[in-house]
Amino acid sequence: MGLFSKDIKTMDDLFVHQLQDVYYAEKQIHKALPKMIEKATDQGLRSGLEAHRGETEGHIRRLEQVFKQHGVEAKAVNCPAIDGILKEADEVAGEVADKEVLDAAIVAACQAVEHYEITRYGTLVAWAKRLGRQDCAELLQQNLDEEYAADDKLTKLATGGINRKAA
Amino acid sequence: MGLFSKDIKTMDDLFVHQLQDVYYAEKQIHKALPKMIEKATDQGLRSGLEAHRGETEGHIRRLEQVFKQHGVEAKAVNCPAIDGILKEADEVAGEVADKEVLDAAIVAACQAVEHYEITRYGTLVAWAKRLGRQDCAELLQQNLDEEYAADDKLTKLATGGINRKAA
Repeated sequence: MGLFSKDIKTMDDLFVHQLQDVYYAEKQIHKALPKMIEKATDQGLRSGLEAHRGETEGHIRRLEQVFKQHGVEAKAVNCPAIDGILKEADEVAGEVADKEVLDAAIVAACQAVEHYEITRYGTLVAWAKRLGRQDCAELLQQNLDEEYAADDKLTKLATGGINRKAA
Repeated sequence: MGLFSKDIKTMDDLFVHQLQDVYYAEKQIHKALPKMIEKATDQGLRSGLEAHRGETEGHIRRLEQVFKQHGVEAKAVNCPAIDGILKEADEVAGEVADKEVLDAAIVAACQAVEHYEITRYGTLVAWAKRLGRQDCAELLQQNLDEEYAADDKLTKLATGGINRKAA
Protein backbone atom coordinates (compact mmCIF):
# COMPACT_ATOMS: atom_id res chain seq x y z
CA MET A 1 0.00 0.00 0.00
CA GLY A 2 2.95 2.34 0.16
CA LEU A 3 3.53 5.04 2.73
CA PHE A 4 -0.05 6.05 2.72
CA SER A 5 -1.44 6.13 6.19
CA LYS A 6 -1.38 9.91 6.59
CA ASP A 7 -3.53 10.32 3.47
CA ILE A 8 -6.14 7.76 4.51
CA LYS A 9 -8.95 9.23 6.55
CA THR A 10 -12.11 7.53 5.33
CA MET A 11 -13.21 4.15 4.05
CA ASP A 12 -13.39 5.77 0.61
CA ASP A 13 -9.73 6.85 0.84
CA LEU A 14 -8.80 3.29 1.81
CA PHE A 15 -10.76 1.85 -1.12
CA VAL A 16 -9.13 4.20 -3.63
CA HIS A 17 -5.69 3.49 -2.22
CA GLN A 18 -6.21 -0.27 -2.47
CA LEU A 19 -7.36 0.23 -6.08
CA GLN A 20 -4.13 2.13 -6.80
CA ASP A 21 -2.14 -0.66 -5.12
CA VAL A 22 -3.65 -3.44 -7.23
CA TYR A 23 -3.43 -1.28 -10.39
CA TYR A 24 0.32 -1.04 -9.78
CA ALA A 25 0.48 -4.77 -9.06
CA GLU A 26 -1.32 -5.75 -12.29
CA LYS A 27 1.01 -3.53 -14.33
CA GLN A 28 4.11 -5.04 -12.71
CA ILE A 29 2.76 -8.56 -13.26
CA HIS A 30 2.12 -7.76 -16.92
CA LYS A 31 5.75 -6.65 -17.23
CA ALA A 32 7.12 -9.68 -15.35
CA LEU A 33 5.21 -12.43 -17.18
CA PRO A 34 7.23 -12.53 -20.45
CA LYS A 35 10.38 -13.49 -18.54
CA MET A 36 8.54 -16.30 -16.75
CA ILE A 37 7.05 -17.52 -20.04
CA GLU A 38 10.48 -17.51 -21.68
CA LYS A 39 11.96 -19.63 -18.88
CA ALA A 40 9.10 -22.15 -18.65
CA THR A 41 9.58 -25.38 -20.60
CA ASP A 42 6.31 -27.27 -20.04
CA GLN A 43 4.03 -26.41 -22.97
CA GLY A 44 0.87 -26.32 -20.82
CA LEU A 45 2.54 -23.93 -18.40
CA ARG A 46 3.78 -21.66 -21.19
CA SER A 47 0.40 -21.43 -22.90
CA GLY A 48 -1.35 -20.95 -19.54
CA LEU A 49 0.93 -18.05 -18.66
CA GLU A 50 0.50 -16.53 -22.11
CA ALA A 51 -3.27 -16.68 -21.76
CA HIS A 52 -3.01 -15.13 -18.30
CA ARG A 53 -0.95 -12.25 -19.69
CA GLY A 54 -3.88 -11.46 -21.97
CA GLU A 55 -6.27 -11.65 -19.02
CA THR A 56 -4.01 -9.28 -17.09
CA GLU A 57 -4.50 -6.66 -19.81
CA GLY A 58 -8.25 -7.10 -19.31
CA HIS A 59 -7.83 -6.64 -15.55
CA ILE A 60 -5.94 -3.38 -16.06
CA ARG A 61 -8.71 -2.09 -18.33
CA ARG A 62 -11.41 -3.12 -15.83
CA LEU A 63 -9.55 -1.32 -13.05
CA GLU A 64 -9.41 1.81 -15.22
CA GLN A 65 -13.19 1.51 -15.61
CA VAL A 66 -13.61 1.22 -11.82
CA PHE A 67 -11.50 4.36 -11.29
CA LYS A 68 -13.66 6.15 -13.87
CA GLN A 69 -16.96 4.97 -12.36
CA HIS A 70 -15.77 6.03 -8.93
CA GLY A 71 -14.83 9.47 -10.30
CA VAL A 72 -11.11 9.35 -9.55
CA GLU A 73 -8.02 9.40 -11.72
CA ALA A 74 -6.45 6.02 -12.59
CA LYS A 75 -3.16 6.08 -10.71
CA ALA A 76 -0.72 3.47 -9.46
CA VAL A 77 1.00 3.63 -6.06
CA ASN A 78 4.12 1.71 -5.22
CA CYS A 79 3.43 -1.58 -3.44
CA PRO A 80 6.28 -3.31 -1.58
CA ALA A 81 4.29 -6.56 -1.33
CA ILE A 82 4.03 -7.28 -5.06
CA ASP A 83 7.59 -5.99 -5.57
CA GLY A 84 8.80 -8.60 -3.06
CA ILE A 85 6.71 -11.39 -4.58
CA LEU A 86 7.94 -10.57 -8.10
CA LYS A 87 11.52 -10.27 -6.90
CA GLU A 88 11.28 -13.84 -5.65
CA ALA A 89 9.60 -14.94 -8.88
CA ASP A 90 12.36 -13.32 -10.91
CA GLU A 91 15.03 -15.08 -8.89
CA VAL A 92 13.23 -18.36 -9.48
CA ALA A 93 13.31 -17.74 -13.22
CA GLY A 94 17.08 -17.71 -12.90
CA GLU A 95 19.65 -20.39 -13.28
CA VAL A 96 18.01 -23.63 -12.11
CA ALA A 97 19.58 -26.21 -14.41
CA ASP A 98 16.90 -28.91 -14.23
CA LYS A 99 14.07 -27.62 -16.41
CA GLU A 100 11.38 -29.60 -14.63
CA VAL A 101 12.46 -28.29 -11.22
CA LEU A 102 12.45 -24.81 -12.72
CA ASP A 103 8.90 -25.30 -14.02
CA ALA A 104 7.75 -26.41 -10.55
CA ALA A 105 9.38 -23.29 -9.04
CA ILE A 106 7.73 -21.06 -11.67
CA VAL A 107 4.29 -22.51 -10.88
CA ALA A 108 4.85 -21.85 -7.16
CA ALA A 109 5.96 -18.27 -7.85
CA CYS A 110 2.92 -17.62 -10.06
CA GLN A 111 0.60 -19.03 -7.42
CA ALA A 112 2.06 -16.59 -4.88
CA VAL A 113 1.24 -13.79 -7.33
CA GLU A 114 -2.31 -15.12 -7.85
CA HIS A 115 -2.94 -15.34 -4.10
CA TYR A 116 -1.79 -11.77 -3.64
CA GLU A 117 -4.30 -10.63 -6.25
CA ILE A 118 -7.05 -12.84 -4.79
CA THR A 119 -6.68 -11.30 -1.34
CA ARG A 120 -6.61 -7.73 -2.70
CA TYR A 121 -9.62 -8.20 -5.01
CA GLY A 122 -11.51 -10.00 -2.23
CA THR A 123 -10.98 -6.99 0.01
CA LEU A 124 -11.87 -4.52 -2.76
CA VAL A 125 -15.15 -6.30 -3.58
CA ALA A 126 -16.14 -6.21 0.12
CA TRP A 127 -15.22 -2.54 0.48
CA ALA A 128 -16.99 -1.55 -2.77
CA LYS A 129 -20.19 -3.18 -1.49
CA ARG A 130 -19.92 -1.44 1.90
CA LEU A 131 -19.52 1.87 0.09
CA GLY A 132 -22.65 1.14 -1.94
CA ARG A 133 -20.63 0.83 -5.17
CA GLN A 134 -22.26 -2.30 -6.56
CA ASP A 135 -21.17 -1.26 -10.07
CA CYS A 136 -17.51 -1.26 -9.00
CA ALA A 137 -17.96 -4.45 -6.98
CA GLU A 138 -19.21 -6.30 -10.06
CA LEU A 139 -16.18 -5.37 -12.17
CA LEU A 140 -13.78 -6.22 -9.35
CA GLN A 141 -15.56 -9.56 -8.85
CA GLN A 142 -14.87 -10.40 -12.51
CA ASN A 143 -11.15 -9.86 -11.95
CA LEU A 144 -11.33 -11.90 -8.73
CA ASP A 145 -13.07 -14.80 -10.51
CA GLU A 146 -10.40 -14.86 -13.22
CA GLU A 147 -7.60 -14.86 -10.64
CA TYR A 148 -9.23 -17.81 -8.84
CA ALA A 149 -9.52 -19.66 -12.17
CA ALA A 150 -5.87 -18.94 -13.01
CA ASP A 151 -4.79 -20.26 -9.60
CA ASP A 152 -6.88 -23.42 -10.11
CA LYS A 153 -5.25 -24.02 -13.51
CA LEU A 154 -1.80 -23.69 -11.91
CA THR A 155 -2.77 -26.16 -9.17
CA LYS A 156 -3.93 -28.63 -11.84
CA LEU A 157 -0.69 -28.19 -13.77
CA ALA A 158 1.33 -28.68 -10.58
CA THR A 159 -0.49 -31.77 -9.32
CA GLY A 160 -1.10 -33.22 -12.78
CA GLY A 161 2.38 -33.42 -14.12
CA ILE A 162 5.05 -30.83 -13.40
CA ASN A 163 5.79 -31.88 -9.81
CA ARG A 164 5.50 -35.55 -10.72
CA LYS A 165 8.08 -35.18 -13.46
CA ALA A 166 10.37 -33.07 -11.30
CA ALA A 167 10.29 -35.51 -8.36
CA MET B 1 12.85 -17.47 -1.69
CA GLY B 2 15.96 -15.31 -1.61
CA LEU B 3 18.86 -15.45 -4.03
CA PHE B 4 18.73 -19.19 -4.17
CA SER B 5 18.58 -20.37 -7.74
CA LYS B 6 22.22 -21.46 -7.99
CA ASP B 7 21.80 -23.77 -4.99
CA ILE B 8 18.62 -25.42 -6.27
CA LYS B 9 19.28 -28.46 -8.40
CA THR B 10 16.64 -31.00 -7.40
CA MET B 11 13.03 -31.07 -6.30
CA ASP B 12 14.32 -31.86 -2.83
CA ASP B 13 16.47 -28.68 -2.81
CA LEU B 14 13.43 -26.68 -3.88
CA PHE B 15 11.30 -28.22 -1.11
CA VAL B 16 13.91 -27.47 1.57
CA HIS B 17 14.33 -23.93 0.29
CA GLN B 18 10.58 -23.30 0.40
CA LEU B 19 10.52 -24.68 3.95
CA GLN B 20 13.26 -22.21 4.92
CA ASP B 21 11.29 -19.42 3.22
CA VAL B 22 8.07 -20.09 5.15
CA TYR B 23 10.03 -20.66 8.39
CA TYR B 24 11.41 -17.13 7.99
CA ALA B 25 7.93 -15.83 7.14
CA GLU B 26 6.31 -17.37 10.23
CA LYS B 27 9.00 -15.90 12.48
CA GLN B 28 8.58 -12.44 10.95
CA ILE B 29 4.79 -12.68 11.30
CA HIS B 30 5.17 -13.66 14.95
CA LYS B 31 7.30 -10.55 15.49
CA ALA B 32 4.92 -8.27 13.57
CA LEU B 33 1.63 -9.33 15.19
CA PRO B 34 1.97 -7.50 18.55
CA LYS B 35 2.10 -4.12 16.77
CA MET B 36 -1.04 -4.99 14.78
CA ILE B 37 -2.83 -6.14 17.95
CA GLU B 38 -1.86 -2.96 19.77
CA LYS B 39 -3.30 -0.78 16.97
CA ALA B 40 -6.54 -2.75 16.49
CA THR B 41 -9.57 -1.39 18.34
CA ASP B 42 -12.31 -3.92 17.55
CA GLN B 43 -12.33 -6.45 20.39
CA GLY B 44 -13.09 -9.40 18.10
CA LEU B 45 -10.19 -8.44 15.84
CA ARG B 46 -7.79 -8.05 18.78
CA SER B 47 -8.67 -11.41 20.30
CA GLY B 48 -8.57 -13.10 16.89
CA LEU B 49 -5.08 -11.76 16.22
CA GLU B 50 -3.93 -12.76 19.72
CA ALA B 51 -5.19 -16.31 19.15
CA HIS B 52 -3.46 -16.39 15.77
CA ARG B 53 -0.17 -15.35 17.37
CA GLY B 54 -0.42 -18.46 19.54
CA GLU B 55 -1.16 -20.58 16.45
CA THR B 56 1.86 -19.06 14.73
CA GLU B 57 4.08 -20.41 17.53
CA GLY B 58 2.58 -23.84 16.84
CA HIS B 59 3.33 -23.44 13.11
CA ILE B 60 6.97 -22.64 13.84
CA ARG B 61 7.25 -25.75 16.02
CA ARG B 62 5.60 -27.92 13.33
CA LEU B 63 8.02 -26.58 10.72
CA GLU B 64 10.93 -27.47 13.01
CA GLN B 65 9.50 -30.99 13.20
CA VAL B 66 9.29 -31.16 9.39
CA PHE B 67 12.94 -30.07 9.08
CA LYS B 68 13.88 -32.78 11.60
CA GLN B 69 11.83 -35.51 9.89
CA HIS B 70 13.38 -34.56 6.57
CA GLY B 71 16.85 -34.76 8.11
CA VAL B 72 17.91 -31.15 7.56
CA GLU B 73 18.76 -28.31 9.91
CA ALA B 74 15.97 -25.82 10.72
CA LYS B 75 17.11 -22.64 9.01
CA ALA B 76 15.43 -19.46 7.79
CA VAL B 77 16.26 -17.74 4.50
CA ASN B 78 15.40 -14.15 3.73
CA CYS B 79 12.16 -13.76 1.80
CA PRO B 80 11.45 -10.45 0.03
CA ALA B 81 7.77 -11.36 -0.44
CA ILE B 82 6.82 -11.52 3.24
CA ASP B 83 9.08 -8.55 3.97
CA GLY B 84 7.09 -6.52 1.43
CA ILE B 85 3.72 -7.72 2.74
CA LEU B 86 4.69 -6.94 6.35
CA LYS B 87 6.11 -3.55 5.35
CA GLU B 88 2.69 -2.66 3.96
CA ALA B 89 1.00 -4.06 7.06
CA ASP B 90 3.26 -2.00 9.29
CA GLU B 91 2.48 1.15 7.35
CA VAL B 92 -1.23 0.41 7.74
CA ALA B 93 -0.77 0.17 11.50
CA GLY B 94 0.41 3.76 11.38
CA GLU B 95 -1.43 7.00 11.76
CA VAL B 96 -4.95 6.46 10.40
CA ALA B 97 -7.04 8.62 12.68
CA ASP B 98 -10.41 6.89 12.25
CA LYS B 99 -10.15 3.73 14.32
CA GLU B 100 -12.74 1.82 12.32
CA VAL B 101 -11.01 2.59 9.02
CA LEU B 102 -7.76 1.49 10.65
CA ASP B 103 -9.36 -1.82 11.75
CA ALA B 104 -10.58 -2.43 8.17
CA ALA B 105 -7.06 -1.76 6.89
CA ILE B 106 -5.54 -4.11 9.49
CA VAL B 107 -7.92 -6.92 8.48
CA ALA B 108 -6.94 -6.44 4.81
CA ALA B 109 -3.24 -6.49 5.71
CA CYS B 110 -3.64 -9.65 7.78
CA GLN B 111 -5.53 -11.35 4.97
CA ALA B 112 -2.65 -10.60 2.59
CA VAL B 113 -0.34 -12.32 5.10
CA GLU B 114 -2.70 -15.32 5.39
CA HIS B 115 -2.90 -15.70 1.61
CA TYR B 116 0.87 -15.66 1.34
CA GLU B 117 1.07 -18.49 3.86
CA ILE B 118 -1.78 -20.39 2.18
CA THR B 119 -0.02 -20.36 -1.19
CA ARG B 120 3.33 -21.42 0.32
CA TYR B 121 1.87 -24.25 2.44
CA GLY B 122 -0.28 -25.41 -0.49
CA THR B 123 2.88 -25.72 -2.60
CA LEU B 124 4.81 -27.42 0.21
CA VAL B 125 2.09 -30.04 0.79
CA ALA B 126 2.07 -30.87 -2.95
CA TRP B 127 5.87 -31.08 -3.11
CA ALA B 128 6.11 -33.21 0.08
CA LYS B 129 3.67 -35.70 -1.44
CA ARG B 130 5.58 -35.83 -4.73
CA LEU B 131 8.76 -36.51 -2.79
CA GLY B 132 7.03 -39.37 -0.96
CA ARG B 133 7.16 -37.48 2.36
CA GLN B 134 3.61 -38.15 3.54
CA ASP B 135 4.76 -37.56 7.13
CA CYS B 136 5.91 -34.03 6.27
CA ALA B 137 2.82 -33.41 4.11
CA GLU B 138 0.54 -34.17 7.06
CA LEU B 139 2.21 -31.64 9.35
CA LEU B 140 2.28 -28.99 6.63
CA GLN B 141 -1.41 -29.66 5.91
CA GLN B 142 -2.20 -28.89 9.57
CA ASN B 143 -0.54 -25.49 9.22
CA LEU B 144 -2.38 -24.92 5.92
CA ASP B 145 -5.75 -25.78 7.50
CA GLU B 146 -5.16 -23.31 10.34
CA GLU B 147 -4.17 -20.55 7.91
CA TYR B 148 -7.38 -21.13 5.92
CA ALA B 149 -9.40 -21.00 9.15
CA ALA B 150 -7.66 -17.76 10.20
CA ASP B 151 -8.43 -16.20 6.81
CA ASP B 152 -12.10 -17.26 7.10
CA LYS B 153 -12.35 -15.67 10.55
CA LEU B 154 -10.92 -12.41 9.16
CA THR B 155 -13.43 -12.48 6.28
CA LYS B 156 -16.28 -12.94 8.78
CA LEU B 157 -14.97 -10.07 10.91
CA ALA B 158 -14.69 -7.88 7.82
CA THR B 159 -18.11 -8.60 6.35
CA GLY B 160 -19.84 -8.89 9.72
CA GLY B 161 -19.03 -5.57 11.22
CA ILE B 162 -15.74 -3.81 10.72
CA ASN B 163 -16.33 -2.64 7.13
CA ARG B 164 -19.96 -1.84 7.91
CA LYS B 165 -18.98 0.41 10.80
CA ALA B 166 -16.18 2.03 8.81
CA ALA B 167 -18.38 2.81 5.79
